[in-house]
Amino acid sequence: MDGMDTADPTAPLDQLRASLPADVVETRPDSMEAFRRDWSRDAGAGMPLAVVRPRDAGEVQATVRWAAEHRVPVVPRGAGSGLSGGASAVGGGLVLSLDRMRAIDVDVATQVAYVEPGALNAEVKAAAAEQGLWYAPDPASYAISSIGGNVATNAGGLCCVKYGVTADYVLGMDVVLADGRLVTLGGPRIKDVAGLSLVQLFVGSEGMLGVITRVVLRLQPPPPTPATLVATFPTTRSAADAVVAIRSATRPSMLELMDAASVNAVEDHRAMGLDRSAGALLIGRSDAPGAARADEVALMEKACAEAGAVEVFVTEDADEGEMFAEARRAAFPAIETRGSVMLEDVGVPVPLLPDLLTAIADVAERHDLEIPTVAHAGDGNTHPIVVFDAADPASVERAHAAFAEVMAAAIALGGTITGEHGVGRAKKAALPDQLGEDVMDLNRRVKAALDPANILNPGAVL
Amino acid sequence: MDGMDTADPTAPLDQLRASLPADVVETRPDSMEAFRRDWSRDAGAGMPLAVVRPRDAGEVQATVRWAAEHRVPVVPRGAGSGLSGGASAVGGGLVLSLDRMRAIDVDVATQVAYVEPGALNAEVKAAAAEQGLWYAPDPASYAISSIGGNVATNAGGLCCVKYGVTADYVLGMDVVLADGRLVTLGGPRIKDVAGLSLVQLFVGSEGMLGVITRVVLRLQPPPPTPATLVATFPTTRSAADAVVAIRSATRPSMLELMDAASVNAVEDHRAMGLDRSAGALLIGRSDAPGAARADEVALMEKACAEAGAVEVFVTEDADEGEMFAEARRAAFPAIETRGSVMLEDVGVPVPLLPDLLTAIADVAERHDLEIPTVAHAGDGNTHPIVVFDAADPASVERAHAAFAEVMAAAIALGGTITGEHGVGRAKKAALPDQLGEDVMDLNRRVKAALDPANILNPGAVL
Repeated sequence: MDGMDTADPTAPLDQLRASLPADVVETRPDSMEAFRRDWSRDAGAGMPLAVVRPRDAGEVQATVRWAAEHRVPVVPRGAGSGLSGGASAVGGGLVLSLDRMRAIDVDVATQVAYVEPGALNAEVKAAAAEQGLWYAPDPASYAISSIGGNVATNAGGLCCVKYGVTADYVLGMDVVLADGRLVTLGGPRIKDVAGLSLVQLFVGSEGMLGVITRVVLRLQPPPPTPATLVATFPTTRSAADAVVAIRSATRPSMLELMDAASVNAVEDHRAMGLDRSAGALLIGRSDAPGAARADEVALMEKACAEAGAVEVFVTEDADEGEMFAEARRAAFPAIETRGSVMLEDVGVPVPLLPDLLTAIADVAERHDLEIPTVAHAGDGNTHPIVVFDAADPASVERAHAAFAEVMAAAIALGGTITGEHGVGRAKKAALPDQLGEDVMDLNRRVKAALDPANILNPGAVL
Repeated sequence: MDGMDTADPTAPLDQLRASLPADVVETRPDSMEAFRRDWSRDAGAGMPLAVVRPRDAGEVQATVRWAAEHRVPVVPRGAGSGLSGGASAVGGGLVLSLDRMRAIDVDVATQVAYVEPGALNAEVKAAAAEQGLWYAPDPASYAISSIGGNVATNAGGLCCVKYGVTADYVLGMDVVLADGRLVTLGGPRIKDVAGLSLVQLFVGSEGMLGVITRVVLRLQPPPPTPATLVATFPTTRSAADAVVAIRSATRPSMLELMDAASVNAVEDHRAMGLDRSAGALLIGRSDAPGAARADEVALMEKACAEAGAVEVFVTEDADEGEMFAEARRAAFPAIETRGSVMLEDVGVPVPLLPDLLTAIADVAERHDLEIPTVAHAGDGNTHPIVVFDAADPASVERAHAAFAEVMAAAIALGGTITGEHGVGRAKKAALPDQLGEDVMDLNRRVKAALDPANILNPGAVL
């Protein structure tokens, strides 16, 4: 399924233009350049035939119908903040950008939001908050990532250790299928088992099965203001041991780990008051109600102390707590300034987190590379970031080897090559190693059943 | 996809027998009778060729391989407590009963349980509790229903208003596919987006896509002991209004409704101290920690009072509270003693619950039938139970009409024909009305991709 070599080079783009408002189909070189890659900076991204920026589902249907007729690949794209190359353009294909479709309609009584895919996560959170409600999922990129992308990758985030991932909040969706039909799956019902779980099949499908044009998201009353705990440890391993101990007793509302390299990268980029001397940092939160909050924080403090924490700091102040969460979220952009990067997203069962972090450090040392690591530690999901010098072929080669070895280490520990970013194009070489040939075959069968001509995001994942 | 008329009537059952231990393939008439129907008492259930009761995944594979070779339908079956005819035998096919596969292995550190499909929900709860952990999902049938059936139907229950449904607790599974291959999907990782969400596709697939031979279930520390609130209302509508008000402010750990007819049915069957004069009863619970529990109970009390509750009773005593939950769970068996029954499972967005209950009462009155109704009210999911006289053709006809009209009413309110029981055979006639032809087509395509010969549970759902 690699690429699509059947694309018609003479596909009549004028026909598509004629069926859509004048400014929907863009072919200016600067547009093409701006829309043909996501944050993974995929060097293999192709040059698209055009960027299509529809304003409603009908325009999406017209685009997909034209593409199906002429066998032109379609790569759906949200805000382009993806980290695995899931939205890399396919040469000669269309980039179908949903960035103009961003309506948000909150139904307070039903506690749901109807959201178009281009709306940013932060915009949904804000719209819900205006009505006294809360949209929980919070990928670190929430300020810049779209809901469509969040749903297409089943994005995680910082609060999922307690509140779950994007999938847990998607009750329904409208999808344009590979033949241009528009269907509605699920809806604003909390429980619904009528037919196969197609809503959940489309969540995390990375644009391979259809183009999501609207989602129904579950909202809830906001949780109490959290208390935030910051603990410094002599080593990454001792911090990871604390995580395992905390998670065996409770599910805090956040439990993030930063290793020494990522702490220093953040401080180098923008001084945020983190302890540069720490071997590792844990940022934990409790939003348990009332007095239970103090109990949960005390439990986390005790676990940190027993695991060898050097210092534990607790604040009930929301702004101060948010500053630490912000420091954690700043890790990607900070580390990106240190060189070229390859972003990892490997995960393991929580008790194996210390082993995974040790394995990552071994890989870094063996290949003489800096691999700063931050982690949604409470879920066993880590983001080692391989930093390399793109101008030095030897460094590039070592980086590729390290990237592959980190995934292999996760698989060897019974883990996954991607916990929340998706496979995209960056990780597809390793997918069979995790899933095995029979499960790859199942994936391909489902893909072929819904997109027999392989129009939708060809070359991604499979 | 109705039935399978291609089954080979001369399929060499001896060949299957020879490939399995002597007692695995049963053909005695009493076995056939005991295993060919679930709790829905489907009059259309066929007479199977044999009942196969394997002890491990290898024996399941041998059975499915033989069935695939000879095009013999296979109906997987857990404990037979299904309410929609999902496990009705197909004439000339195999009933594949998983009741002998019931190993439970709790991994305390990872907070998961590896469970074979025949283990009862209650057995999993007990095994988790022995290790200080909790398996949350609690269908009313938890004492008699199997985990395999819970997963195959994506079973709900009483606690899902706060804790979610079975799908939220399934991290992975082993499945025997239609061609006999055994695959492992997902695993004990909290976050994993490698490839399509096949685990979630198999959850709720009602035996149509594969035979589940093991699941990985998420466990968690147990919640605090709940406080229980019981409120009586003059009318069903006022109780439903209280539900809407409570749910707009919080997610209690239980919020069940019983109408007057179901209260009286339970009391007739076994006196449990419920108020027979009540127009409707709400049973709510809070398991919020510490002082937050009293706050949440007070909030529920206030909402009940404002909606017109006649009396509100609160107990912090766990046994007393459990008695009320037990009375709610007793509704099905109690109502079953009143005549023949057709069990409904319709749901709507929570704010429309009062309208749905009014519509159900209208249907009952119009057809001169008793339709006692209990509801997982906090989720908008109701169980109207159509009681009729099987010996009276007119009564049977009216019951069928009422059953269809209740589903139509739910669909008209933007709801679902099944919130947690599954479509099975009892509701498949109404499924296209809810999903529409395009979504039915999607269901069929996925089914055909995974089971091209339509061996697995043919005639169910689609």
